[in-house]
Amino acid sequence: MSQSFWSPIVHELTPYVPGEQPKGMGLVKLNTNENPYGPSPKVLAAISSVLNDTLRLYPDPTASELRQTIAEYYALSPNQVFVGNGSDEVLAFVFQSLLAHGRPVLFPDISYSFYPVYCQLYGIEYRAIPIDDQMAIVPKDYFGAEATGIGGIVFPNPNAPTGRLMSLLDIERLVAGHPGVVVVVDEAYIDFGGQSAVTLIDRYPNLLVTQSLSKSRSLAGLRVGLALGHPDLIEALVRVKDSFNSYPLDRLALVGAQAAFLDTAYFEETRQRIMDDRDGLTAALKARGFEVIPSAANFVFARHPQYSGAELYQGLRAQSVIVRHFNKPRIADFLRITVGTTAQNQALLTALDRLVAP
Amino acid sequence: MSQSFWSPIVHELTPYVPGEQPKGMGLVKLNTNENPYGPSPKVLAAISSVLNDTLRLYPDPTASELRQTIAEYYALSPNQVFVGNGSDEVLAFVFQSLLAHGRPVLFPDISYSFYPVYCQLYGIEYRAIPIDDQMAIVPKDYFGAEATGIGGIVFPNPNAPTGRLMSLLDIERLVAGHPGVVVVVDEAYIDFGGQSAVTLIDRYPNLLVTQSLSKSRSLAGLRVGLALGHPDLIEALVRVKDSFNSYPLDRLALVGAQAAFLDTAYFEETRQRIMDDRDGLTAALKARGFEVIPSAANFVFARHPQYSGAELYQGLRAQSVIVRHFNKPRIADFLRITVGTTAQNQALLTALDRLVAP
Repeated sequence: MSQSFWSPIVHELTPYVPGEQPKGMGLVKLNTNENPYGPSPKVLAAISSVLNDTLRLYPDPTASELRQTIAEYYALSPNQVFVGNGSDEVLAFVFQSLLAHGRPVLFPDISYSFYPVYCQLYGIEYRAIPIDDQMAIVPKDYFGAEATGIGGIVFPNPNAPTGRLMSLLDIERLVAGHPGVVVVVDEAYIDFGGQSAVTLIDRYPNLLVTQSLSKSRSLAGLRVGLALGHPDLIEALVRVKDSFNSYPLDRLALVGAQAAFLDTAYFEETRQRIMDDRDGLTAALKARGFEVIPSAANFVFARHPQYSGAELYQGLRAQSVIVRHFNKPRIADFLRITVGTTAQNQALLTALDRLVAP
Repeated sequence: MSQSFWSPIVHELTPYVPGEQPKGMGLVKLNTNENPYGPSPKVLAAISSVLNDTLRLYPDPTASELRQTIAEYYALSPNQVFVGNGSDEVLAFVFQSLLAHGRPVLFPDISYSFYPVYCQLYGIEYRAIPIDDQMAIVPKDYFGAEATGIGGIVFPNPNAPTGRLMSLLDIERLVAGHPGVVVVVDEAYIDFGGQSAVTLIDRYPNLLVTQSLSKSRSLAGLRVGLALGHPDLIEALVRVKDSFNSYPLDRLALVGAQAAFLDTAYFEETRQRIMDDRDGLTAALKARGFEVIPSAANFVFARHPQYSGAELYQGLRAQSVIVRHFNKPRIADFLRITVGTTAQNQALLTALDRLVAP
């Protein structure tokens, strides 16, 4: 009855459903691409150092120190850096401020399932461009008839949930080939083996790169994401953010994120360990008959010719191993498995060995 | 040139400008209504207890434990509680999900200056209803011709920047008199002497109350706000939030906010101290010839018959005392002065004594 109070848009929304955050103990949680290693000890120390009476004060609404640190890290200017409450909030601002032109936005059909939700929220049309049978984005499909009169392009690189990487050369062609619209490269997983498009920013005013501290920086619990691009693109994001919430990053997140970018040694060590373990996990899955899509992320996307995705997902869950299964066309037979610690990966393989005949 | 990439809405926005967060030392900062006392020691301890490797994991997207604690505090059910990244984010969701009906929203002309910004952002028309010469909201002005065909009503109680309180009886009349639209009571400052409208929630499905932990809970730096109302109103907020950002509250904010609601003793002691000091500050300002609007908030709104607001603001600033001055019609001669510690209030008065002839 009280739904009569809802704004019309609310009735139309099909909200995004994030991966489960189970509360039980003893689970092997490989379902939401969290980093198996905790954040840098320097991050914890930095947060601890401001965990005091200063919490009574508002944070810096411009996040100037964090933006300065990120700018130095990427050899950019601070006015080429935007920060927000996780890359989800950053992407929401991107859709609202740079992709809402009354023309369809293109993204891959198998991709981050939040994109169509943002489109609903901001009344943006979209065209989902099929990835190919090898689960790869086909750059030429973003030209030609499908790309006529579009309002923008967005895709993750590497793609999620497939893990497949697009080359920097292909990205540059896409960006250069669409000078009239913004091309958003969502690099949530770029640190696990990809080459960032950040190096193209100074040449292409229509390129926006988004990143997250939730994966390679082990800070999913702190909620920090960023966007990098031409100052005019960043200005659009700032205007929308300042019309929505002056301070989406709290005082603890600001200093924690800054410390994460400063501790490059810890970052390099943990991401290398995850890449090594990903390669080990990939080989072990192949040895068990799985087809594994080549991954440049901290997860693998794999299917077994004899067992359905739902069956394996349930069988693993019954053994307290949680992976992600998307009950969707084209990918229903795949499992998306986060690369865990060596011990967690082994627990997954042991559980699979009880389900998959040798 | 790259502004051609902006969505049309971006060109129209005039973002909200928050009070200055100066970085210098030795300032008497009475400009953004922060609490002069730090958060409860139990809040700091609770955050410290989760400042560890678990930051690698996403927060609970439903904030279920925090919502349970708030529900118990107010004798509500968890499905009557919504939490967000500061009451600014909560209010943004409210405007988008409950006030965007293609009909004008009413709010006071002198009020929280973020309201018209939200209206711009979500394409909502509004009518600003004048407060009276005593800076009070006049309830009867929200009936009659001005209130025909409206999409909702929103106002702070106590109002900001005036500090004036509306009685619970008047609020109930407003809510009961507009059963077809949502009435939002923005209670950012309610804990400093007002009576919350929360007690009306079970009788009025069109009442939504928003609150903040930034003022009375000393947690401006942690970014937590909430909304309380009928489960159907809360569901609208959840749908929009889950279409925007699954986890606007980080793991540290979730436990810190929960601890703040549990430590009622600290809350009662600090808010009482602020109310006592507000009364002392009011008397001292009156003794210096100021007109002081009766305040139920942690600030006072005052003007002096012989000196302009801008003049006093600058004169105080030159002495390192920062208050808020709004260069706007009707209130340009007022200063909004946050109630600080007894020592800060004394520093303000000492500085004023150098500006105002006895």
